[in-house]
Amino acid sequence: MPTMDRDDDETLELVRKMFTERIPFNQVLGVEIDSLSFDDARVRFGYRDDLVGNFVRGTLHGGVVSAVLDLTGGLVAFLSALRSIEGGTPEEKTERLANVGTIDLRVDYLRPGLGQWFMASGTILRAGNKVAVTRMELHNDEDQHIAVGTGAYLVG
Amino acid sequence: MPTMDRDDDETLELVRKMFTERIPFNQVLGVEIDSLSFDDARVRFGYRDDLVGNFVRGTLHGGVVSAVLDLTGGLVAFLSALRSIEGGTPEEKTERLANVGTIDLRVDYLRPGLGQWFMASGTILRAGNKVAVTRMELHNDEDQHIAVGTGAYLVG
Amino acid sequence: MPTMDRDDDETLELVRKMFTERIPFNQVLGVEIDSLSFDDARVRFGYRDDLVGNFVRGTLHGGVVSAVLDLTGGLVAFLSALRSIEGGTPEEKTERLANVGTIDLRVDYLRPGLGQWFMASGTILRAGNKVAVTRMELHNDEDQHIAVGTGAYLVG
Amino acid sequence: MPTMDRDDDETLELVRKMFTERIPFNQVLGVEIDSLSFDDARVRFGYRDDLVGNFVRGTLHGGVVSAVLDLTGGLVAFLSALRSIEGGTPEEKTERLANVGTIDLRVDYLRPGLGQWFMASGTILRAGNKVAVTRMELHNDEDQHIAVGTGAYLVG
Repeated sequence: MPTMDRDDDETLELVRKMFTERIPFNQVLGVEIDSLSFDDARVRFGYRDDLVGNFVRGTLHGGVVSAVLDLTGGLVAFLSALRSIEGGTPEEKTERLANVGTIDLRVDYLRPGLGQWFMASGTILRAGNKVAVTRMELHNDEDQHIAVGTGAYLVG
Repeated sequence: MPTMDRDDDETLELVRKMFTERIPFNQVLGVEIDSLSFDDARVRFGYRDDLVGNFVRGTLHGGVVSAVLDLTGGLVAFLSALRSIEGGTPEEKTERLANVGTIDLRVDYLRPGLGQWFMASGTILRAGNKVAVTRMELHNDEDQHIAVGTGAYLVG
Repeated sequence: MPTMDRDDDETLELVRKMFTERIPFNQVLGVEIDSLSFDDARVRFGYRDDLVGNFVRGTLHGGVVSAVLDLTGGLVAFLSALRSIEGGTPEEKTERLANVGTIDLRVDYLRPGLGQWFMASGTILRAGNKVAVTRMELHNDEDQHIAVGTGAYLVG
Repeated sequence: MPTMDRDDDETLELVRKMFTERIPFNQVLGVEIDSLSFDDARVRFGYRDDLVGNFVRGTLHGGVVSAVLDLTGGLVAFLSALRSIEGGTPEEKTERLANVGTIDLRVDYLRPGLGQWFMASGTILRAGNKVAVTRMELHNDEDQHIAVGTGAYLVG
């Protein structure tokens, strides 16, 4: 198990910055990183009127849910892959985020997307050197289970 | 096979309006309906800088792709369900769009999301009175196959 | 929350019997019920040479894994639906198993299917009166995580 | 487009033999190759009582459907990967089948599995040097659409 040193801290800080500041559609969604390690991540976003799909019930658009689960899974897949990269500065390592690509995604919608804010969490199911598989969950601020997902990501 | 009468035309026109004007996140994505019938639908959107996920390559965010495939599948599922509703004005029928919900969605990402504009198309695989299953495809303006998806929708 | 009475015990016993004795392909796979309640189920099967897919490595055929996850999810979906059926004898209730159908299934293969025996477990993610969504896991006898799955089932 | 030479013919013949004679669970299912090229494949199997899941209706077990779609997708993924292997005898090439592994699989069940025999077909959606994505369909002898699937396979 790798020890957490200054470089690791710096790498995670760079990932956080890149994720929230340099990915345009993440900014459209308004996602922010709540917590981050090389094993898991939590991503948070607030309810906004323009994120709505069902205009009668005021629930989140299914596409908002799938987008947030996809980006959470991709983040976790990337962090897991970062671990096995030897050498390189934190900057060089995080630049590799651009190489991560979703192979496929499945989302199961469990309850209507209602709440003041939402938290997506992701964990690694399979950490390969070519392909990572992740599981994602979305809960609202009352801890109701809104959706789950699974994603396969190309990380090599 | 049902004949197309004035009510059908009016119903389709109302669906089109509802889809583009009353679903907030559809407006964020900038999707427009290219063609529409009770059997299939084509949804178009243009490339915009804020839809990007990969800031190095300038490709569409995976979440934009999944969102567009989800809404295209939902639209097709709804149109298919509309057919079996007997009675009611076009207004009453289209209000039922609010009852359609995604059960689950799978997206396969085939090529990087690059292009000036993109076209999503959806067709019905299974038209039940409770559950509809749809297949969706996304192509760019050069007719390259960007992604495919399958969705199950509660329509009853 | 329903109380467990004699009828419930009898119903579970009938489900167990039906599952192992009356579903032909379950017998081909050699699956047996390890534990059963209205909330979850555990299904066990032993390694056999004719369940192999990869003849070089001797690992389980991917189709064996998907089949076992599908039947485990279907079992859990059915048990969950049984709860909401009011009236009827245990026999009448369990006959409804014939109405449960898989809408769709996703399987993620995490590790090669090696082991002396395997245990599949399933839990309910969404318990609707028309559609149930379940999550399934497969572990080997050393508790290694072989596969996960999600299924949507028509139960109404 | 590669020319078909004697080696290609021999390679396809070896794949066919390996597929039907050396994969134990394929024999349990009774699958046979109907047609085979480097681009697509058709796999056929007959209805048998022990392949049944629903004992009231006599329909195929969902696990039989998922198993056949998985093996059809894996076959197509492997054939596609064979193309890019340079050098080596047909024997050496086909031995690589043992390296192909399913990453994940989605199956959508469209109609009850009834028929005298069934035909599964598979085509390549994404042919990468690490990951292949395939689409699969299952029809019965009356050409009714029983199920569709998508699979991601590790081929590198």
